[in-house]
Order: sequence, then structure tokens, then C-alpha cells
Amino acid sequence: MIIAVDAMGGDHAPGEIVKGAVKAAAENPSLTIKLYGDEKQIQPLLNQQKNIEVIHTDEVILSTDEPVRAVRRKKNASMVLMAQAVKDQEADACVSAGNTGALMAAGLFVVGRIKGIDRPALSPTLPTIDGQGFVMLDLGANADAKPEHILQYAVMGSIYAEQVRGIKNPTVGLLNIGTEEGKGNELTKQAYALLEQSGLNFVGNVESRDLLNGVSDVVVTDGFTGNMVLKTIEGTAQALFGMLKETFTSSLKTKLAAGLVKSDLRALKGKLDYTEYGGAGLFGLNAPVIKAHGSSNETAVYNAIKQAHTMAENDVSGKISASLNQ
Amino acid sequence: MIIAVDAMGGDHAPGEIVKGAVKAAAENPSLTIKLYGDEKQIQPLLNQQKNIEVIHTDEVILSTDEPVRAVRRKKNASMVLMAQAVKDQEADACVSAGNTGALMAAGLFVVGRIKGIDRPALSPTLPTIDGQGFVMLDLGANADAKPEHILQYAVMGSIYAEQVRGIKNPTVGLLNIGTEEGKGNELTKQAYALLEQSGLNFVGNVESRDLLNGVSDVVVTDGFTGNMVLKTIEGTAQALFGMLKETFTSSLKTKLAAGLVKSDLRALKGKLDYTEYGGAGLFGLNAPVIKAHGSSNETAVYNAIKQAHTMAENDVSGKISASLNQ
Repeated sequence: MIIAVDAMGGDHAPGEIVKGAVKAAAENPSLTIKLYGDEKQIQPLLNQQKNIEVIHTDEVILSTDEPVRAVRRKKNASMVLMAQAVKDQEADACVSAGNTGALMAAGLFVVGRIKGIDRPALSPTLPTIDGQGFVMLDLGANADAKPEHILQYAVMGSIYAEQVRGIKNPTVGLLNIGTEEGKGNELTKQAYALLEQSGLNFVGNVESRDLLNGVSDVVVTDGFTGNMVLKTIEGTAQALFGMLKETFTSSLKTKLAAGLVKSDLRALKGKLDYTEYGGAGLFGLNAPVIKAHGSSNETAVYNAIKQAHTMAENDVSGKISASLNQ
Repeated sequence: MIIAVDAMGGDHAPGEIVKGAVKAAAENPSLTIKLYGDEKQIQPLLNQQKNIEVIHTDEVILSTDEPVRAVRRKKNASMVLMAQAVKDQEADACVSAGNTGALMAAGLFVVGRIKGIDRPALSPTLPTIDGQGFVMLDLGANADAKPEHILQYAVMGSIYAEQVRGIKNPTVGLLNIGTEEGKGNELTKQAYALLEQSGLNFVGNVESRDLLNGVSDVVVTDGFTGNMVLKTIEGTAQALFGMLKETFTSSLKTKLAAGLVKSDLRALKGKLDYTEYGGAGLFGLNAPVIKAHGSSNETAVYNAIKQAHTMAENDVSGKISASLNQ
């Protein structure tokens, strides 16, 4: 199994990317990792790990680059070469912590779509309070969606939940503004009808206020709503932790209390840390493409590589294709 | 000024509703409050307050009733009579903590729309960390919206922010999944163009993750997205406070800490309590219709009545109408 990794993408590239790759390679000798990026920066970090190859390139797609144009013009960018390796079957899957839009463009234009999938979907596993997590898609690969796209998201999410997360007959919920059938906008009403007839384990509408409690193994929605909800959860959690911090530093008494619960609060924050759940899969492409979080550290990169590995090993792309074209 | 109040709507009706009405009436002798509901339950709570009238009715719309049907069939329900009083100009504004859908139906079918407004919008003032709050609409009166509806929401929100909240030249933000122009789905892209040419103080796209920090005085979005975001904020805050509670009761050490910060944490939670900001206006109707939260207590009802009073006093409905038909 060969995983191509964009060593130059992400806030902490190449350092943390290479460290994560070394950790994954050391743990699994049957795995080969191809690192795309600046050899001079990468080599000193490699630690003589044998099952890592470095493919040198000077070109990099920046987080500020316009995605589609960058992928079209920077033909030798580490991210583009990584995707090209998958396309040319020199790698089985790929991982990047770089520009999300550019990775989606590289996935679409270089790796290519599965026949029967109109639009790939950004599909992370999000945290729940009980630590189980759930797969949610689309989180923003496409702002607009039609009901049949939501159905495709449900098929892809179910296969991923079963093959990679090991959940038998995973439940699928439709994100909506009420749980009763008939609730929602035109899109969710039509998507509901399609999901009901899909043969998937559809459990009906689920509400955003219940997501952290774990409402279903897979939650489907259009990319605009998914991205909106993700950012709302992030923003609310951040605001609350900020207010909490302020509270705990406001007086001697509260500082004393802070000392007593510091480690517990850190554990609480850790529960909501989605880097623990790996990266966001770009589902619907001919091979696994994983977007690791921009701020990925060694552990996050390691988890993303493991996730790409498991997806490739279980032939998730092949199974999605077979399910749609059966 | 006469405010009609549905004494039978809400989880704590009629007790807290009547208490809130008594408080508002006692504070402002020039105000008359008409209470619609069961005289036998209401009278003992009235405390000989002179500027309160009770209009007896046995019929009540329940929270479980199908909204439109309930308003059409229960002609003598306290909520319907309250709306009818506004329609018949026997009251200047009305307040209910009952079934939200039914109140929207009563607003639409009984009170009636302002000419030039296609769809009324549910428009609460939501909390921010700095305590200023902002007006957000539509929070779910209509699941689907067209770009021109979003523009109408912006006009209504601006007039409310200026006339009732006293903000000069209020800023208007379009809720979107990125701040740059050109981001979003078809709806937000088209709404952006309309808002830019509107003459309002449009500040561009705003993101859901920044809402609690206060991004603009008015935030506009379609009802599906607005309702989704509101429920996500509520659910995330609830989940975090739940986890926090669990953390604080997990050991003797953390219980000790909890004792030290208890009052500070309660204050923190209070900051996010939107009942402090009054009820949600149903903007776009011929007279002010205020939806108080279902769990409203005395203070929330008092604030909602004050809000209805201020809206009526400043002729917000008339100003919206004038602005649209100028």
C-alpha cells in the first residue's frame, strides 16, 4: 500500500507533516509513504525511516492561492504531484493539510470522480460527547445541492461508516429544522422522500442541536448548511471556552478554582477535538483523498494517513462505485 | 397604548404571563393590557391592578396543535382573540408565548401582512458576549426564501434596530459560509448583490462562528439556515454546560472548585440568556406581534410586553411600510 502525502501543505508544514508520516511508516513496515515537497527541508527530519520516499519539488500551493487557478497553473506543486501520483496509480491514496479548495480541485480534476457521483463531498468525522463521533457530509465541497446529491452523500457516508469505522448497518439522519416528516425546506423535503426509498438505514430527520449527543452514524446535508453548522459549533465552543477562561482569571478565588480543575477542563476540550478523528475524506473520488486540518500536528497527520490507509485497504471508492452502478 | 396578551400560551401560563403583565402595567399607568384567557385562573393573580382588562375565553391553542388548522378552527382561542383585537384596532400590538407556528399563522391570517412584504420573518434579538446583542432574521418563519425576501428582512431589521434598539445607521450583515464576496450558495450570492445596491448600511458577508462576538447590528439569512444556526448555538452551549457540570461533580477536588466559581458560572450562563432581550418579533405584519419564548417567566413576559410597546410607540410597522412603498 502506497500513500502519497503533500509535505508542504498546512500551518506546520513540513515539520509536523513529516513527523506524522514517519510515525505512520515506522508503525507499519508494509506501508510506503511518498512525500512530495522540498527535499532540503524534508530529509533532515526523516530519521532514516526506510519506507519513506521523497519526491522533490519547489512549487507549493499557498493557503491564499485561488484554488482552481492554482491547481491548473502550478503543475509541479506538491499537492498536484501528490494527486497525480494517485491518478497514475503510483499511489493508492493521498493526504494533504493544505488549501482545502485547491485539494477539492485537485481531487476533482486530477484524481477524478467516481462514475455515478455528481459531486464529491467533504466528509469529516465529528466528535460527540460519548467519544463515538459521526460522519457528516457535505461540509462544504459544494454550496448548492440537489436532493439526489444528498442521496449520494448518504450512500457514500454509509459505506465509509461500515467499511472504515466498522459500524454494521449504520444509521443515516437527514439534518433538518424539525424531526417530523414534512419539516424543512424544499430540498430536505425532497431528499427525505429519496432517502426513505433508498434501502439505507434511514432514521429520518435529525436536528443540529442534538449533533454533539450523537443522533446517527451518518448525517447528511447540503454543503452550505453543513459548513454553516460546523462553523457555528466551532464558534460557540470557542466563545464559551473564551468566556470560561475569562471567568477563571477574574479573581483570586476563581484562579484557585482554575488550578483545581485545569486538567479536567483540558480533558473536556480534548473530547471536542476533531483532529483525533483523522481528517476529512473527500468522498466520491476514484481513490481516497484526505484533507487533514490546516493546523494539523504530528498526531493529526498520523491519523489522517491511517485513515487513508484504511479507506484504500477496504476499497471504499470501489464499493461506492459498485453500490451506485449495481 | 393597548397591548393584547395571550394569557394561556407558554409552559408557565397563565401564572408567569399574568405576573409579567402585572409588572408591565404597574410600571406604566398609561399602558392598558388586555389579557385573553380563563378568567377564573387569571383574576386571582391580578393584584387589583387597574390598567388590566380580562377577556374571558375557554378555548386554547395547544403546543401540540397543528398551527394553521388550529388558528382556522379555534376561533375563540386566546391567541386568535388576541390577534383579532389587533386586527380590529382594539389593541396596538400583541404578545404570546404559545405555539410559534400558530402565532405565525394568526399573524399572517388575522393581523395581516404589510403591503410590499411577501413573508413575515421571525426576528429575535440574540445575545453577544459583550451584552449588546443583535437582531437576526429570519429564524424560521419561512423555510425557503428568495433573494428579494432577504432584502426585505434587511429593511425590516434595520428599521427595528434603529427605532427600537436605538442604533443609528445600523450595520447589516449577510450570514454566509465565507466573508469574501462571491462566497456561498446561489441564494446568498444573489442576496449579496441586492443588499449592496439597497442603500442600507450593508457590511458584507458575516460568518456564523463570529455571531456571539457581535459582527453586525442586523444579520439576515433564510429561515432554514437561521433556525439551523440558532439550534446549533443552543445545542452546543447546552452540551458544553452539561459537560462542565459533569466535570465539576466528578471528584471532591472539582466539587471544591465548583463552589468557588458557582456564581461566576451562573453569570456567564446568564450572559447567553436571550430571554433578557425580550421576545422574537414577527416582522412584516400590520402591527407588532411578539413571540415570547415558550418557557418564558415573569421577566421574559415583562420584557416582551415592553418590546411590543416600544415597537407600537415608534410605529415600526408603519415605518417599514413607508420605506418599502416610498
